[in-house]
Amino acid sequence: MASLIDRDKQFIWHPFTPQKQMPDPIAIVKGSGSLLFDEMGNSYIDAISSWWVNLHGHAHPYIAEKIYQQALTLEQVIFAGFTHSPAVNLAERLLPLLPGSMSRIFYSDNGSTSTEVALKMALQYWWNLNPEKARTKILCFENSYHGDTFGAMSVSDRSVFTTPFVPLLFDVITIPLPNNGNLDSIKSIIHQYGNDIAAFIYEPMIQGAGGMNMYDSYLMNELLNSVKLYEVICVADEVMTGFGRTGTLFASEHYHKKPDIICLSKGLTGGTMALGVTACNNRIYNAFVDDDKRKTFFHGHSFTANPLACTAALASLDLLQQQSAIERIEWLCNEVAIFAKELINLNLQIQNVRVVGTVLAFEMQDVTKTYLHQIAQPFTKACLDRGVYIRPLGNTVYIMPPYSVTESEFEKIKSVILEVIKLFV
Amino acid sequence: MASLIDRDKQFIWHPFTPQKQMPDPIAIVKGSGSLLFDEMGNSYIDAISSWWVNLHGHAHPYIAEKIYQQALTLEQVIFAGFTHSPAVNLAERLLPLLPGSMSRIFYSDNGSTSTEVALKMALQYWWNLNPEKARTKILCFENSYHGDTFGAMSVSDRSVFTTPFVPLLFDVITIPLPNNGNLDSIKSIIHQYGNDIAAFIYEPMIQGAGGMNMYDSYLMNELLNSVKLYEVICVADEVMTGFGRTGTLFASEHYHKKPDIICLSKGLTGGTMALGVTACNNRIYNAFVDDDKRKTFFHGHSFTANPLACTAALASLDLLQQQSAIERIEWLCNEVAIFAKELINLNLQIQNVRVVGTVLAFEMQDVTKTYLHQIAQPFTKACLDRGVYIRPLGNTVYIMPPYSVTESEFEKIKSVILEVIKLFV
Repeated sequence: MASLIDRDKQFIWHPFTPQKQMPDPIAIVKGSGSLLFDEMGNSYIDAISSWWVNLHGHAHPYIAEKIYQQALTLEQVIFAGFTHSPAVNLAERLLPLLPGSMSRIFYSDNGSTSTEVALKMALQYWWNLNPEKARTKILCFENSYHGDTFGAMSVSDRSVFTTPFVPLLFDVITIPLPNNGNLDSIKSIIHQYGNDIAAFIYEPMIQGAGGMNMYDSYLMNELLNSVKLYEVICVADEVMTGFGRTGTLFASEHYHKKPDIICLSKGLTGGTMALGVTACNNRIYNAFVDDDKRKTFFHGHSFTANPLACTAALASLDLLQQQSAIERIEWLCNEVAIFAKELINLNLQIQNVRVVGTVLAFEMQDVTKTYLHQIAQPFTKACLDRGVYIRPLGNTVYIMPPYSVTESEFEKIKSVILEVIKLFV
Repeated sequence: MASLIDRDKQFIWHPFTPQKQMPDPIAIVKGSGSLLFDEMGNSYIDAISSWWVNLHGHAHPYIAEKIYQQALTLEQVIFAGFTHSPAVNLAERLLPLLPGSMSRIFYSDNGSTSTEVALKMALQYWWNLNPEKARTKILCFENSYHGDTFGAMSVSDRSVFTTPFVPLLFDVITIPLPNNGNLDSIKSIIHQYGNDIAAFIYEPMIQGAGGMNMYDSYLMNELLNSVKLYEVICVADEVMTGFGRTGTLFASEHYHKKPDIICLSKGLTGGTMALGVTACNNRIYNAFVDDDKRKTFFHGHSFTANPLACTAALASLDLLQQQSAIERIEWLCNEVAIFAKELINLNLQIQNVRVVGTVLAFEMQDVTKTYLHQIAQPFTKACLDRGVYIRPLGNTVYIMPPYSVTESEFEKIKSVILEVIKLFV
């Protein structure tokens, strides 16, 4: 019988993966804590939380048990006309934790759908107010990434990710991340188009797939002030930053100005399974409460508010809200900050070492970021050979460990990074 | 403490649900077989399989056990650079079951993402062949529905579902379902635009959300012949029709002409949880195997090929491929056909009684279908009051029971429908 890897190469098409001369995938058979185990018994510390999703470690028995009990009780029911306690309990627990004055939870299945829902809510908000004068422009950042469906791609930066699809994406207004030199020119764009802009979508504090770009919260507050002058709906895409990654429970806590809509996924279920949430405040929601049935939000997915996924999210919240978890996040933030200082002081010829909360990033070789940079693959391999899983975005190396990472595991992540950097500078 | 329903009304925004004067949702606490149980102990036969997803009955202990074991072993791992046996086993088992010569499985999270992936594969196929001459037009049917994200909405009919978003949807070429009177005019459209059309997306045999429109397979074959003259990529959206609903395992089996790409979700996991699959043949796949890394398919979701969802799908296939399940589907098809004849013979002043496989549909009151028809809500309530859950699409009443439905449950569905029809004619 063919090996799992040979069968994989025969039948599977992997995401974001060149299909020619790609290295064999590693077959993972087991996860436990922060470790992933392959067929040969090798273990790897999951230093990027499996695409930024895992919070509490892999195959967590508490979450598994809760999912099992729910699967024996009610695995799924249509969520139009019906409800169930996992969905209601999760909404009730999430809302008070969210920044701003979020009042409603709309469920979907992943990060892309959570941003699609947010965009549609924002656009229909203006249509519901007045179809004749509905605003249709979306404001977004250069280097932003909000997902891979057409709406999410449209509000993401045009890049190698989107090139073949550009003729079918809708137009947006794109501004650079704010810095001390450009704030006035950004503001002038906002003043020019403000009354046409339906919504401003942004990844608060850190742009993820665009290269772990961290940006100033004071300047972002200024920018949010400007857009709010024009009643632009502010959409915080917290798919990556939510649930503690930036040191606060949600990244929008770093700003005085709060969003009208928040998108969540990834860490929402503790990284167990797919689930999306789009939360909004009453300004948004009330525009949909009307006798005119055409003002209904006609969006939904078959598995909207899947009871298993909601149960996983509730179990993850149980773990996240324990005092020990809060202390782990504080400890991890501190360790990451110390490591950043070490990286700077060692003068290793790496560029732009930066930190927000539990996330640390720097560039290898070039100051300029290039997603298709040739270093990514050999860097990953060198780390894997040493028992640590890191997946640079081009030449941008970053870590974002699960909160379950132990002191000795974190020490190993550090020592492997230091060793591997020296191979490539 | 507030009741579950009061808390729901305070915190939750339900899909496709008017937010003013909506009836209280029913709080479901348990599912078992084809039955859903509410807080008060009332049971409802789930005659539409909870939005067409459930195959084997609710809270199936075999599926629950498999999910639990997987959750204790490996709940999730990044699917770029890594693989795992649930994903590989599912791909290996699905591919030979699919119509056509499908060779590759690309995973995503739901039906909308499965169609977005299909559209992007088809568009990038042409771009990869020649960026200068890439085809960008999509051909689709009037009254089609392929999901709620922007790409999926763009290839769906413009309707009350899409009105506020139309300015941001990409243009498509729309044709009516083929009938004996219009085939030549449809063919002339195809001859006119054929060399510009990247892909033709269709719901084989039955259009679901558009009103359970069933259409002739001979004429559709003729149409598929025409588009294939122009090498148009054929995308079968089998999200609803897959896994036995039309009497064959997949609806594309009813046609001689096979698709290049197939979209799956809903019944894929037996209705347990969200998972999407986009399968393609080597014509598509080989266009992505290239030294030029820009020809990579840059699409992915955090939970792509989630091990829990793949495990649920494998467990569902185990159940579906048992001889008893195949016999249940045959029995159900037969019962549904008999019921259709009864409905016609009883001369109940209902319109256009029709059947494909396990799906039966007819219109109440008007021949014309209207999604916002006022009969939908009271019809649902009258059925619920009698212990059967049916959710008309406007004035289109339909049933699509899970294969677990028993003889007595099916008898009850029939008697309740007959009783409720008489209240509204």
